Amino acid sequence: MLELKGIGASAGIAIARAYRLEEPELTVSKTTVADQDAEIRRFEEAIQKSKSELEKIKDHALKELGKDKAEIFAAHLLVLSDPELLNPVKDKISSEASNADFAMKETADMFVSMFESMDNEYMKERAADIRDVTKRVIAHLIGVELPSPSLISEEVVIVAEDLTPSDTAQLNRQYVLGFTTDIGGRTSHSAIMARSMEIPAVVGTKEATAKIENGTMVIVDGLSGDVIIDPSAETIAAYEEKKKKHEAQKAEWAKLVNEPTVSKDGQHVELAANIGTPKDVKGVIENGGEAVGLYRTEFLYMGRDQLPTEDEQFEAYKAVLTNMEGKPVVVRTLDIGGDKELPYLHLPKEMNPFLGFRAIRLCLEEQDIFRTQLRALLRASVHGNLRIMFPMIATLDEFRQAKAVLLEEKAALQSKGTEVSENIEIGIMVEIPSTAVMADVFAKEVDFFSIGTNDLVQYTMAADRMNERVSYLYQPYNPAILRLITLVIEAAHKEGKWVGMCGEMAGDPIAIPILLGLGLDEFSMSATSILPARTQILNLSKEEAASHKEQILGMQTTQEVIDFVKKTFNVK
Amino acid sequence: MLELKGIGASAGIAIARAYRLEEPELTVSKTTVADQDAEIRRFEEAIQKSKSELEKIKDHALKELGKDKAEIFAAHLLVLSDPELLNPVKDKISSEASNADFAMKETADMFVSMFESMDNEYMKERAADIRDVTKRVIAHLIGVELPSPSLISEEVVIVAEDLTPSDTAQLNRQYVLGFTTDIGGRTSHSAIMARSMEIPAVVGTKEATAKIENGTMVIVDGLSGDVIIDPSAETIAAYEEKKKKHEAQKAEWAKLVNEPTVSKDGQHVELAANIGTPKDVKGVIENGGEAVGLYRTEFLYMGRDQLPTEDEQFEAYKAVLTNMEGKPVVVRTLDIGGDKELPYLHLPKEMNPFLGFRAIRLCLEEQDIFRTQLRALLRASVHGNLRIMFPMIATLDEFRQAKAVLLEEKAALQSKGTEVSENIEIGIMVEIPSTAVMADVFAKEVDFFSIGTNDLVQYTMAADRMNERVSYLYQPYNPAILRLITLVIEAAHKEGKWVGMCGEMAGDPIAIPILLGLGLDEFSMSATSILPARTQILNLSKEEAASHKEQILGMQTTQEVIDFVKKTFNVK
Repeated sequence: MLELKGIGASAGIAIARAYRLEEPELTVSKTTVADQDAEIRRFEEAIQKSKSELEKIKDHALKELGKDKAEIFAAHLLVLSDPELLNPVKDKISSEASNADFAMKETADMFVSMFESMDNEYMKERAADIRDVTKRVIAHLIGVELPSPSLISEEVVIVAEDLTPSDTAQLNRQYVLGFTTDIGGRTSHSAIMARSMEIPAVVGTKEATAKIENGTMVIVDGLSGDVIIDPSAETIAAYEEKKKKHEAQKAEWAKLVNEPTVSKDGQHVELAANIGTPKDVKGVIENGGEAVGLYRTEFLYMGRDQLPTEDEQFEAYKAVLTNMEGKPVVVRTLDIGGDKELPYLHLPKEMNPFLGFRAIRLCLEEQDIFRTQLRALLRASVHGNLRIMFPMIATLDEFRQAKAVLLEEKAALQSKGTEVSENIEIGIMVEIPSTAVMADVFAKEVDFFSIGTNDLVQYTMAADRMNERVSYLYQPYNPAILRLITLVIEAAHKEGKWVGMCGEMAGDPIAIPILLGLGLDEFSMSATSILPARTQILNLSKEEAASHKEQILGMQTTQEVIDFVKKTFNVK
Repeated sequence: MLELKGIGASAGIAIARAYRLEEPELTVSKTTVADQDAEIRRFEEAIQKSKSELEKIKDHALKELGKDKAEIFAAHLLVLSDPELLNPVKDKISSEASNADFAMKETADMFVSMFESMDNEYMKERAADIRDVTKRVIAHLIGVELPSPSLISEEVVIVAEDLTPSDTAQLNRQYVLGFTTDIGGRTSHSAIMARSMEIPAVVGTKEATAKIENGTMVIVDGLSGDVIIDPSAETIAAYEEKKKKHEAQKAEWAKLVNEPTVSKDGQHVELAANIGTPKDVKGVIENGGEAVGLYRTEFLYMGRDQLPTEDEQFEAYKAVLTNMEGKPVVVRTLDIGGDKELPYLHLPKEMNPFLGFRAIRLCLEEQDIFRTQLRALLRASVHGNLRIMFPMIATLDEFRQAKAVLLEEKAALQSKGTEVSENIEIGIMVEIPSTAVMADVFAKEVDFFSIGTNDLVQYTMAADRMNERVSYLYQPYNPAILRLITLVIEAAHKEGKWVGMCGEMAGDPIAIPILLGLGLDEFSMSATSILPARTQILNLSKEEAASHKEQILGMQTTQEVIDFVKKTFNVK
């Protein structure tokens, strides 16, 4: 029995045998084959097997994750039917008596390096497709098994160095009970995905893959961040018990689905959810969300090879607004760039993408893209309670420009007789330090603020939150961050505006008492965090929380804040 | 006559013919040579010519720029004597009857791709050396002239897309009267280098290389940022006049070299200089600097293949302290990482180096490097008035750790009988928003602050200052920045500590009245900006400047601040 300490990235407990998801070594060397026809047949069989695997993966993705995700695999299937790729391999086998795996690798490498050398993101993606697909074919040829998370058909805990979004997307909730990774933090993609799929997960253990062998019994405790390897029967029993308790608590939480979020002293706050697609609305309702506090529209633009049309966007926005049945929906306009690339926009590579040409900066420059989205939003506005929010606003000039574009499009639609809601609130994300510092000036012109803590922390501390070597500086409870949040809330309230928060911090049990005390009006989080947050707030007095404000803002370090909150508000 | 508008990066006016510094096209194609021995001789001659050019460049670099820079070219000369590179070329010529240029290129490409594929920064640098040197040899073989800025021997204005630091380093002040580039801004490397060499420069013209032909008469006005192409005789006369006036003004400034910097109402502030090497002290004294406000120690670590020893560092620090004759010298500890790489440290590539593992973050982790530097500084401290400053401090914990390491090394030295000054002030750079926001907390523990505006602006606005697409957000006069500066100054003064500024902003005529009014104690800038700044401050009343403080801090936009300052303080 051995215990690893990681970061609890998604609540819950999983107990099952380990399934290591790893990149196998695919070493290919040249040999000479005597029977070239047989080798060509062997090659064709490998292609067939790869295709039928990809078909399964595609079907699974279509069922579980929707059309967009499935299209990746449709593209992979096309590659495997492309004579431009297959014929040179067969030629090499017959004319050079080369073994199939070597011929495949050499041909693929040639295409990959050709595509990669093109200064074109789209062609580079094609290179990545060829590399992926080739790997699968070679694995069949040399008899190495490739991990296919979607093919897992027994209950397991996945153990991996890291999970890419597409690995995570392939996981089957029925069989994958939990996962643990060597790297990553609470806000890494795999962690966010795990929470939205409600799979218990512990990330950042540093040595899960070093310590856990395939088939070993493993407990993943996403509540505490512990991973127990080869547990004793007693330990398993204790965790079965803990799991039951957690499930009982979830059942308790479920009773609060239709309750308002009111503190012990009668103050209401709004608990909202962050979503990425119209499909996520179901989870928001099931978890008792009072609003959508952040609809990340990027997903509409990703995993495809051209911009979504105005009508496609309109349908998505309408679906979310309709299904939220009049509850508020804050839609964030396109926040692309940074770590989120759109190959078909052909944006130049940047040295520091997090400090680069992204979000509103890009939208104000590429106004066609921006205006199309705004028209779709304006047309959808009559189907619900729409709030529009601009991301990455750093100066008042930017907000004024963005708002002017929105009003132009509104006037143009109305002059053509299209109905547009007259009650759309227009707000901004506060995620850049300058905007927090200037909140009093902004508060006179915006309808609301939503504090994006992931980026605000990253910029305020000048530390890339995805960079492990400086992750110690990702400190949401640093008094500097709390002071900026306070500036924003006080400035907004002075002008009668409301303030939300849509970063990971909003759903964090340590942050909640502080934020309640600072006067935050709306907390937007992963849907699955809403009911625990509601439970916590029902037991807090806002007035008491507020009474500690000056003391907390005067603290020197992050640790001091954490210790104080844990002790004062009895948070574990 | 045509006029381009750029950014005045270094004051002064240059009038001369254009010299385009450009990467020529070196197209090499394979031919068959009849007389292979003659071809080998042709190859050997090209090697000889390249070597003698490199000798000249090396001598020039040694004379003008010191040993470190010259070593780059010594390494290049070694490559050209390496039989491992030369023999395969000759073999190809004799065995394949290949032309020398093709044989050279093929051989070099092979080495370059071999070295580049190694996951080792040192070998990658070797690849770059081979590429550079090969270019020179091929240029000789195909009869294309390669630009060698150090070989320029008539008065010219350099026109280039951009100048790398090593291009700039090769410029001969005697003949290169000025330069203009397509890209870059006031804080780009070439701009900083131009100011330290006192060469008039206009950068960021976007189309200098598109519009200016070789040999065309050009005026570069580094005061206004104008570039005039093919000027009329009248225009030349007018600029000769302006140039004379500027030089007369410089002569006026020169009279202030030994004067203190006192405002009209009798308030003294300290005008200090930013330096990179001990050689720069001469310019500080000549320009009347009252202190060194920022000694960037990185240059000691760059352009070499291993860390500098403690003694090498000691000698450098001692030289600066001694030559400053008791005037204060603020030494910033190693600020490496970000855009400043040290190949021999083998740091992993980062996605956002400006938000990454750099400066104090690296020093606290790699304590051997840090402690060596601190020992060298402590030993040198008895030779002058040393102040030690830690860069990129984001949290109080980091400052406490860094200071503890310093005190440990001090105690260790003293216990061995080494003399160490007891009057070393210990301060921090304020260049991360969190530190500005928490200045009141820091002010209780540091001896001084120095505001690094280049980074502070970059992080506060979340915009990479080197990225042209978001350069509009590099706004030092944004009220958000001014508010943060105010926070820092007020917090420091409350605790009786002093505040300096060592970013580009400190020497800017628009910033100076604002900063004087906010109460900044020390202004550290390029040495050549000191006398103009002193002239400006002599004519300002600090009290009057301070009277506008609330108004300026309440402004909404950067433009509003600029307009107000220009009007109120009569700044052009």
